[in-house]
Amino acid sequence: MTAPTNLSGEDSLIARYFKPLATDPGAFGLVDDAAVLSASGEDIVVTTDAVVEGVHYLASDPPDTVARKALRVNLSDLAAKGAAPAGFVLTLALRSKEDAWLRPFADALGEDAKTFACPLLGGDTVSTPGPQMISITAFGRVPKGRMVGRTGARPGDIVLVTGTIGDAALGLDVLTGGAAATALASDIAAKDALISRYRIPQPRNMLAQAVRDHATAAMDVSDGLAGDLTKLCAASGVSAIVNVETVPLSAAAAGLIVRKAICVETLLAGGDDYEVLCTVPPAQSDALIAAGRAAGLAVTAIGTIVAGHERPRFLDGQGQELALKRLSYSHF
Amino acid sequence: MTAPTNLSGEDSLIARYFKPLATDPGAFGLVDDAAVLSASGEDIVVTTDAVVEGVHYLASDPPDTVARKALRVNLSDLAAKGAAPAGFVLTLALRSKEDAWLRPFADALGEDAKTFACPLLGGDTVSTPGPQMISITAFGRVPKGRMVGRTGARPGDIVLVTGTIGDAALGLDVLTGGAAATALASDIAAKDALISRYRIPQPRNMLAQAVRDHATAAMDVSDGLAGDLTKLCAASGVSAIVNVETVPLSAAAAGLIVRKAICVETLLAGGDDYEVLCTVPPAQSDALIAAGRAAGLAVTAIGTIVAGHERPRFLDGQGQELALKRLSYSHF
Repeated sequence: MTAPTNLSGEDSLIARYFKPLATDPGAFGLVDDAAVLSASGEDIVVTTDAVVEGVHYLASDPPDTVARKALRVNLSDLAAKGAAPAGFVLTLALRSKEDAWLRPFADALGEDAKTFACPLLGGDTVSTPGPQMISITAFGRVPKGRMVGRTGARPGDIVLVTGTIGDAALGLDVLTGGAAATALASDIAAKDALISRYRIPQPRNMLAQAVRDHATAAMDVSDGLAGDLTKLCAASGVSAIVNVETVPLSAAAAGLIVRKAICVETLLAGGDDYEVLCTVPPAQSDALIAAGRAAGLAVTAIGTIVAGHERPRFLDGQGQELALKRLSYSHF
Repeated sequence: MTAPTNLSGEDSLIARYFKPLATDPGAFGLVDDAAVLSASGEDIVVTTDAVVEGVHYLASDPPDTVARKALRVNLSDLAAKGAAPAGFVLTLALRSKEDAWLRPFADALGEDAKTFACPLLGGDTVSTPGPQMISITAFGRVPKGRMVGRTGARPGDIVLVTGTIGDAALGLDVLTGGAAATALASDIAAKDALISRYRIPQPRNMLAQAVRDHATAAMDVSDGLAGDLTKLCAASGVSAIVNVETVPLSAAAAGLIVRKAICVETLLAGGDDYEVLCTVPPAQSDALIAAGRAAGLAVTAIGTIVAGHERPRFLDGQGQELALKRLSYSHF
């Protein structure tokens, strides 16, 4: 990503929209092909996530929310790894260079970069005849050896999750005219809240340090709580029991369940939550919940890690296991 | 990018094709969403470049060459920055998960990762209804403050370039039935050599240390020598005079010029060279050329940096300035 004096179409696009975002000295004002991330003995955490038009966001989604989603899905990974954001690089595959799309996209990206202290370091802008795609690689810092992995969950650990689960999947359902859209026909406020959860993830970076201090394993919930907990357990060589009644739901989601408009499985397997899922030793559970409370964020115990290699079990209020047909979103 | 025991379609794809490439301990065998790049006081150089089907490579290009190109365009940036490869993350946007495409793609990517000591650290695999796209972010290491930038060229510096210029553009011309295809109709060997230059860049990583030791400014030639030198000069606040007769050409390219099948402007503005363009103080020019020779790589002086802010001038054998209509490839 370069922004020199003699500007080709691509360079002028970069200079106009993205140079203002490159506030970090390591970005060299985007006049170089490469950026520098200085490191003094800590570990650099690297994560990469792409969003594709028509797959991760809808063609009708506003460009400012697309920008925020593209960055925030990566910030969410950093939060779950206990890392402080350090910067990101952006690959933007565009069909056209319409100002009406690029201006709000770049402005929102710049706002989020500032809000989350995660400056743009560089990138690549390419043309594509197909759907637009935004691929971001984000960097974070942790003290050496302190990234929170997926492999440390131990029997007896408490399973915690931040925020509420399933709202983004319901937001997508509203946008695509599914059961939630029908059931909430006249409830504009609820529909807007769910749509917002789909379009604009709320990464839990304020909790990163507490996750690093207390969690034995962590990941962000991006493909569905059921599937993601299954992955975490598999990586740690353990199983889990989840009490589904304790899974935190928004008022809108809980209302839809009560009215039987949707079933809880939809929420447990729905993607795009971008909450932190982690396991903590029982003695430290309260500390993490308190850290959340101090940050205005609900952190909820939903189950326990147990020995074994079978898939985590999701039990209803009667202790009956739910037969989940689908665990999560999969691209293939 | 995760490869747990309970495999969704995406996870099984990652486990099958990409886990074997994740040899670095910081990749955690791709069981995590994030990787760790350890750093002990040096700078991490970050570069990102994407290749899009139908834009950077042809839909008919073999998958193994697509993999090599995707990684090598990034390795080329690291070489020009004087950095030693440290690893990369991969975003793969796929239409399908055909083994016939993915197997040779992953195998070739793994071979190149090994050859260039640049292991896969992580990534993201997503589905796309559109053209396939491979976005790679690569990391390199340099001693603190020693990344070779674009801003250090000074009047009097010699302009050097590695390898030969214009072959990849001719390779694309051959593949798309252009003038080079016609002129080389019966010369299969020449056509194959040019096509290979288009499909499989030869990044000059063996020269990275010498570039770091001697160059005042450097970049890789990816969009066209004329345009890229223009960018370097603009970033350094200088101009340049290039003697076009000294620009290194392959036998195939030189033959096409002699036969007037193509003109030299096509070569100077053609993309995909992936050679190193750099400026060095006159006293150090021989040392860089010798370092190239020791590595079996031609390094050629093609001009001189001069004071001024006008576009670099390209002079023919008679000292006449070429009027370049186009400087480089631009996406927009």
